[in-house]
Amino acid sequence: MAQKPSIPKGTRDFLPADVARRSYVTDVIKTQFERYGFLPIETPAMEKASTLQGKYGEEGDRLMFNILNSGEKVKKADVTALEENKLGRFTASVSEKALRYDLTVPFARFVVQHQNELTFPFKRYQVQSVWRADRPQRGRFQEFTQCDADVIGAVSPLLEAECIQLFDAVFHNLSLKGATIRINHRAILAGIAEYLGAPERIIDFTVALDKLDKIGENGVFEELRQKEFDADALSKLTPLLQLSGDVQTQLDSLEKILVAQPAALKGIAHLRDVLRFVSPLQVSHLEFDLTLARGLNYYTGIIFEIAPPKEIAMGSIGAGGRYDDLTALFGLKDMHGLGISFGLDRLCLVLEELNLFPSTLQQSVDVVVLNFGNSCVEDLMPYVAKWRADGLRVLVYPVNHKLKKQMQFANQSNAPWTISYGEEEQKQGVILLKNMQSGVIKELKKDAFNATALVS
Amino acid sequence: MAQKPSIPKGTRDFLPADVARRSYVTDVIKTQFERYGFLPIETPAMEKASTLQGKYGEEGDRLMFNILNSGEKVKKADVTALEENKLGRFTASVSEKALRYDLTVPFARFVVQHQNELTFPFKRYQVQSVWRADRPQRGRFQEFTQCDADVIGAVSPLLEAECIQLFDAVFHNLSLKGATIRINHRAILAGIAEYLGAPERIIDFTVALDKLDKIGENGVFEELRQKEFDADALSKLTPLLQLSGDVQTQLDSLEKILVAQPAALKGIAHLRDVLRFVSPLQVSHLEFDLTLARGLNYYTGIIFEIAPPKEIAMGSIGAGGRYDDLTALFGLKDMHGLGISFGLDRLCLVLEELNLFPSTLQQSVDVVVLNFGNSCVEDLMPYVAKWRADGLRVLVYPVNHKLKKQMQFANQSNAPWTISYGEEEQKQGVILLKNMQSGVIKELKKDAFNATALVS
Repeated sequence: MAQKPSIPKGTRDFLPADVARRSYVTDVIKTQFERYGFLPIETPAMEKASTLQGKYGEEGDRLMFNILNSGEKVKKADVTALEENKLGRFTASVSEKALRYDLTVPFARFVVQHQNELTFPFKRYQVQSVWRADRPQRGRFQEFTQCDADVIGAVSPLLEAECIQLFDAVFHNLSLKGATIRINHRAILAGIAEYLGAPERIIDFTVALDKLDKIGENGVFEELRQKEFDADALSKLTPLLQLSGDVQTQLDSLEKILVAQPAALKGIAHLRDVLRFVSPLQVSHLEFDLTLARGLNYYTGIIFEIAPPKEIAMGSIGAGGRYDDLTALFGLKDMHGLGISFGLDRLCLVLEELNLFPSTLQQSVDVVVLNFGNSCVEDLMPYVAKWRADGLRVLVYPVNHKLKKQMQFANQSNAPWTISYGEEEQKQGVILLKNMQSGVIKELKKDAFNATALVS
Repeated sequence: MAQKPSIPKGTRDFLPADVARRSYVTDVIKTQFERYGFLPIETPAMEKASTLQGKYGEEGDRLMFNILNSGEKVKKADVTALEENKLGRFTASVSEKALRYDLTVPFARFVVQHQNELTFPFKRYQVQSVWRADRPQRGRFQEFTQCDADVIGAVSPLLEAECIQLFDAVFHNLSLKGATIRINHRAILAGIAEYLGAPERIIDFTVALDKLDKIGENGVFEELRQKEFDADALSKLTPLLQLSGDVQTQLDSLEKILVAQPAALKGIAHLRDVLRFVSPLQVSHLEFDLTLARGLNYYTGIIFEIAPPKEIAMGSIGAGGRYDDLTALFGLKDMHGLGISFGLDRLCLVLEELNLFPSTLQQSVDVVVLNFGNSCVEDLMPYVAKWRADGLRVLVYPVNHKLKKQMQFANQSNAPWTISYGEEEQKQGVILLKNMQSGVIKELKKDAFNATALVS
């Protein structure tokens, strides 16, 4: 019996219109990455399990897709581990490979493995799929695409500044206005933790702070009280949450408050160094955000996060930061890194909601040549070949169906033009070119038609 | 201890130069697919195991990469099956998904699943990775890329003709001369089997014939004798193997020999119909090849195979054919299909050996801006932003290293230009533009430089 076809939950088929939209966005991102000097690399979908495991915490190990060993190798299954409910050990006994979980760890592995073939500082970009066995929901899939750019092997505030410009350039080229580039610095958060008298509790403190948007100032205070921060500390926090003005003004205010915290001053000075390279005229929505505390387990310096325009209710559409010694995991020390990432799926949702995809994306064919029988089509084929060599996308309707059916096809294809070439036209050596939008039909000499005729 | 990093056997990392070459080839292929009216789709890397299993024969099931069920689900492992050495049953108990093995079966699944969203005839192309647990060797990998174009839901010799033109257009646009497009027709092979008095043994017969290149005419005869074809039959085969001249001449000779075999005559007539649409001036290396017998288990009409230029010792670099009712596997009948495929990895090897990659691919950066300290770079950044917006790929060296080190970096980056902007230039408002090939240095006003300055 025939199977009813479907695909695994959390995965997607992309129809031509979807592919056109996704390619439009990745093309813009790749072009900008290249203008900023990043070079493309690709890594395999499958990595050795030992490369990935333990790199993303317990949750990562749990959500990783493992690949079953092939052939006779599955005989080594550790049945005892299964009986003892040691699922990790059982998995390891039947699986030596796993699917890429992000692009960062494979990049670290790549840099170490190929260090003698690369020129440092090395700026790489990578646009590839990753896989996570996460519960699917709106905007969250088990297979999705990441667009990452990282520079490794150099430290300079210029690089952070270029990340900001790069975010801005991508949004500008997607005609996306109103996305906000939020920045913070781990050293500032460390300084605040010290200021509150709890330097060792930076994580507790930032986890609470991160929720400010959702639970408000009182909510944050309540959570911190529960975590036994004392009242005195909390009263010191209030002015920090009320910074206002542009980035420079906020940093000035912050400096005054944290004047006795060396870590914070270092972070503030570093952000000022970065901003010196960023022309204020160019980057419109840049904000300092004290509550921004993502990825504190690996970011060691600046932290970036991009919020979509305010009218869109959605999480961040991009992120990044500086990290040190990621490659140490694979035996290469002192490789400083800085990276940013765009979330393709969310970006597409935002552009969709704001109706920002160019309407030309819907046109995947320029001309449909209607079919008036083999003799006519045969006669026209050398011309069709010429039009295609000229750059036109020409679909010759393959069968001499009724004209109505063919026109229906041309309509559904969103083709802006059709060409008719029947027996009458054959006799006269002309074609009839129809503008599908206006309905206007032009008669042209067969050999006078080319790509230029379509724009004139 | 740090791990020594490596990747699974049969997989590859692609460095920037590799990605540039591969993108060059896939861009040419995609562009031509689109000019012939094919639209892009993408399917997930993971398909349900039930979609793929049993579709590629026993070998396919064995070489498929299965994905281990995640989380608690592995507890359902069928230990009894393992003990009884029923590896297939054991695999099914711990794995519900598998990695894409080719692009054809997922396409059939896609067409059935989305039939109400598609306009037929539907021309789709797809350039994606596939995975096979095959023993790795030169040109054969466990992860590799296929570039497929198929049209489904129409029958017309025009479509076969367009496949031939499309092959030719791709090679032309890659400047690859001398690739041979070989065609044959299943009905002709069936007619020959009848002619030899063994209509039911077409497979035995074609398997032997397929080896003509390797084992010669005598070798083929010997193999057929072992398979108990009688001597009379074999003597009838000799003239068939000695057809010569161009495609039309070969078909004429063949028609005379097989005049009493209706199947063969039908195949010959069909190839003639196809050739009527192909201008002989346009397609240079088109050959009729009686020994071409690939994929007889699914091809039902024309068969294509592309041989690389004669000086390259390598198997086919492209293939295709007509198949009927592929979608019947998923419950949709009478959907006729025709498809072609390019092997990206082999095509890249051929272009590499013939030195056909454009030298510009080695330039992934247009300009390296040398770093003479933060003050100079800060001052130049608004101009750098303008150059980038103009379309130039500009890498600003991030650190004020010694000039020698920076020039070494610029050399290794293959950047055709460098820009120097030190304190002296800052005072005078100029930049020094160096042509890295000629060594010539030009002084330009800072705001006079743009993309045009590089070509003039």
